[in-house]
Amino acid sequence: MSNENVSIFDSTLRDGAQGEGINFSVSDKLAIVRQLDTLGVSYIEAGNPSSNPKDLQFFQAAQTLSLKHASLVAFGATRRRGITVQEDPGCQALLASGVKTVCIFGKSWDMQVTDVLHTTLEENLRMVAETIRYFTKQGRRVFFDAEHFFDGYRTNQDYALSVVLAAVQAGADTIILCDTNGAALPGDITPVVSQVRAALPPQVPLGIHCHNDVGCAAANTILAVQAGARHVQGTFLGFGERCGNANLSTLIPDLQIKLPYSCIPQENLPLLTKTAKVLAEITNIHLDHKMPFVGKSAFTHKGGMHVDGISKTTASFEHISPAQVGNHRNILLSEMSGRSAIAMKMNALDDSITRDSPQAVSFAEKLKEMEYHGYQFESAQASLELRMLKHLGRFSPYFTLLYFKVLGEQPAPRTDRSCSAMVKVKVGDSIEMTAAEGDGPVNALDIALRRALEVFFPALKYVRLVDYKVRVLDGAATAARVRVLIESTDGERSWTTVGVSTDIIEASWMALADSIEYKLLRDDKVLNS
Amino acid sequence: MSNENVSIFDSTLRDGAQGEGINFSVSDKLAIVRQLDTLGVSYIEAGNPSSNPKDLQFFQAAQTLSLKHASLVAFGATRRRGITVQEDPGCQALLASGVKTVCIFGKSWDMQVTDVLHTTLEENLRMVAETIRYFTKQGRRVFFDAEHFFDGYRTNQDYALSVVLAAVQAGADTIILCDTNGAALPGDITPVVSQVRAALPPQVPLGIHCHNDVGCAAANTILAVQAGARHVQGTFLGFGERCGNANLSTLIPDLQIKLPYSCIPQENLPLLTKTAKVLAEITNIHLDHKMPFVGKSAFTHKGGMHVDGISKTTASFEHISPAQVGNHRNILLSEMSGRSAIAMKMNALDDSITRDSPQAVSFAEKLKEMEYHGYQFESAQASLELRMLKHLGRFSPYFTLLYFKVLGEQPAPRTDRSCSAMVKVKVGDSIEMTAAEGDGPVNALDIALRRALEVFFPALKYVRLVDYKVRVLDGAATAARVRVLIESTDGERSWTTVGVSTDIIEASWMALADSIEYKLLRDDKVLNS
Repeated sequence: MSNENVSIFDSTLRDGAQGEGINFSVSDKLAIVRQLDTLGVSYIEAGNPSSNPKDLQFFQAAQTLSLKHASLVAFGATRRRGITVQEDPGCQALLASGVKTVCIFGKSWDMQVTDVLHTTLEENLRMVAETIRYFTKQGRRVFFDAEHFFDGYRTNQDYALSVVLAAVQAGADTIILCDTNGAALPGDITPVVSQVRAALPPQVPLGIHCHNDVGCAAANTILAVQAGARHVQGTFLGFGERCGNANLSTLIPDLQIKLPYSCIPQENLPLLTKTAKVLAEITNIHLDHKMPFVGKSAFTHKGGMHVDGISKTTASFEHISPAQVGNHRNILLSEMSGRSAIAMKMNALDDSITRDSPQAVSFAEKLKEMEYHGYQFESAQASLELRMLKHLGRFSPYFTLLYFKVLGEQPAPRTDRSCSAMVKVKVGDSIEMTAAEGDGPVNALDIALRRALEVFFPALKYVRLVDYKVRVLDGAATAARVRVLIESTDGERSWTTVGVSTDIIEASWMALADSIEYKLLRDDKVLNS
Repeated sequence: MSNENVSIFDSTLRDGAQGEGINFSVSDKLAIVRQLDTLGVSYIEAGNPSSNPKDLQFFQAAQTLSLKHASLVAFGATRRRGITVQEDPGCQALLASGVKTVCIFGKSWDMQVTDVLHTTLEENLRMVAETIRYFTKQGRRVFFDAEHFFDGYRTNQDYALSVVLAAVQAGADTIILCDTNGAALPGDITPVVSQVRAALPPQVPLGIHCHNDVGCAAANTILAVQAGARHVQGTFLGFGERCGNANLSTLIPDLQIKLPYSCIPQENLPLLTKTAKVLAEITNIHLDHKMPFVGKSAFTHKGGMHVDGISKTTASFEHISPAQVGNHRNILLSEMSGRSAIAMKMNALDDSITRDSPQAVSFAEKLKEMEYHGYQFESAQASLELRMLKHLGRFSPYFTLLYFKVLGEQPAPRTDRSCSAMVKVKVGDSIEMTAAEGDGPVNALDIALRRALEVFFPALKYVRLVDYKVRVLDGAATAARVRVLIESTDGERSWTTVGVSTDIIEASWMALADSIEYKLLRDDKVLNS
């Protein structure tokens, strides 16, 4: 028996962007679209071109994307009361976005029609029907989000049903029942979805859109699918208005691993954890450690009894294997995992290294410890290779820092030179000391350090920093640890290095120093990645 | 019709303490017990004296507590195989804790008995029965946690039932069905709980203990209550092994506001948000903004349509009134919000302001320009209010910066004091100059600035930074603009401020200065948001 398909509709870039503290640039949005497409979701709702000029700009830029799995969707309201669809600037902006699939939302709760839209129930039905008919005539595929459906169905069942029936008659492709206020409890879902399923023509798919205001978004979505919904709206990490939307990184494995539904290509399930990490990085939020399936703690065992159970049979305290979703088990106060991958990488530096070499074993342990302290080498392979070289005893430093001092002051001597740095380094038996001014402490330090070292290594003249990222790790005040990622280029190649410290200047220094060492090692062919 | 009572059993201090990154001192534990008792939960499971000497120490200290609502509970395993209860050191430590109510856990999944305990199914039944009988004979009230019950019931229903029946016959007061691995989906709960309810004597209460590994802990708990459970185990903020336990700060309002059950004294519901904040504070974790009911964003509105709806009728986008749980509504301003939202917020500072006031129009323009330059106020409403006050000509500064100088150096004089800062400020006609060392430039600057100002404004002693976020805006090398967000608290409220500059130290300074101005303005009732 093959599994039934459920379409996954990701609204991270639209409903997700309405969450507090979430802000996407156009390039963030493009990067997220690529990630979600690689994972294999069916639809990516990427913005509301009628409410936001940045979103219109995004849809124009997105036309050059070639997507493998996903269709882009633009979101917008029905026409306003009392005008035609042609006269409605929002509908026209939606059309102008050029996207083939649109998601139109309309009211299905009578109170919202009278008290918020200030119009009649009949006019609202016309607004829904005329807008959908207009877009289908323009060759668009239309999804209809029946806003506040569960509240509407409770207070005026006939009207709520008449709204979705009007949408079907006007040519809507899929009808989505929205729990816009997130008020529904699990007991509210099954009867409503079953009744609506029975009332609609069987060829029209039904969808579900839940919010987490009572903590039940995932469960409510699952119950709706079990009652007949085959289109699931949510956001990949649960971002969204108030308490957020249904979390797709939870729902995809719930539906596809624990239940007999198919959401994304089966071979892509192990991408779930990585996708979650990358989306959190792009959004610059801290990925909740406790997030089901993809969180850092999702398969972490701490209680002695649990660790003991896991060592006997993993099923004792794990409901699935972490590898199924690309995550891994953590035993606190112990080690395991990834050794073959590490050995493979070390082998490129020293071909005597195998999976069981003591250096591979001890480096795996060291790596775990560094990751625990906030290092992350996934995006900083240059620093990783340096650490391996050091671990193999094959690293001899090109320079030694004797000291640096960085001074930041306000009012600044010049508006673009608010910091100054002194650097004293030793190369062989020579000592070099320089100073430089810069715009911020890291800029000043970078200039001073390279000025000191260029005397010995002229190739450093062509090195410059192209990206600088700061991540505060544990979110506790200014003495929290920060991770700095620096991307450098010499015009031909680029490489990324990392530093971690409670002091942002020290963390930046570590990444700067790694960057320069890496460049010199590559020029000397010690490293050749 | 009066509501049915549901006992709330909080395990923050036991199962919660098994969560990654959670660590309580004895005094933390005593403080949390007081908070939960004031809120009015029925039971506080405060530790496992047999696994942890600190817990034994806690129970001794706790004997002096006089609690109004809650009973303390100690947790421990059944006796080990092949020995008597008297010979079992764990059981004897549990007895020695002196607590009147104990929670005994035992296996109800046959696989766990054979593969983890390495004993026979019959011996496990004796272990359960003899342990419970021993504690009841010693005058203890015994709750029985049937570990892995849902997994056990699926694979060997008869055995799982025989374990809980043995516990009842041995005198257990309440039988708790545990989804220890968090694997249960909502569809798994109702049939199992109903069947077990029917199989047990009606006077024996049934309980439920869920984990969140598939994101359904809250929903599963609600479904269990609706199927007959009257004892709910969880942790107040959802801490716990792996993805955490059922979150009681979600479940109490779900059961008591949205459903007809009574969990805590009705008049204490408005304490929920404060209890959540205080527990997060004691645990030293960042309270998830999206947490249902008690999170900072739980009643926050950002999308233009939502803000518009709320201004017409709050029921349009709020499922309950935030005051019912002691939380409050936030309207966020961003590029998505229109002039009515801006005017609404300005009107709180000056009630002559309407949507069409010239100040509202010009401030809306100014806001757009600042957002273009990288400001982002939706997570920094305190800075936004300050800007509004300045725009209305109603701001007079509490202090003027004459200068600061920050020195960062490596090698650092002390590992945790790598930076030092000098600050010179003017307050009225007085000039104050101070210096401080810190871990990183912002930490040093923060300490020095507050030290200088505390002389004039003693209330600043209680202000401290709880979160610090850095976002590099245009990703072009170290001279890119950065946006710094700082969250501060005075123990009662928290607020967030923003600074933008190419120099991270200057951006941090702006956010720090705003934070202090905001605190002083609120204390002086100039701002009262």
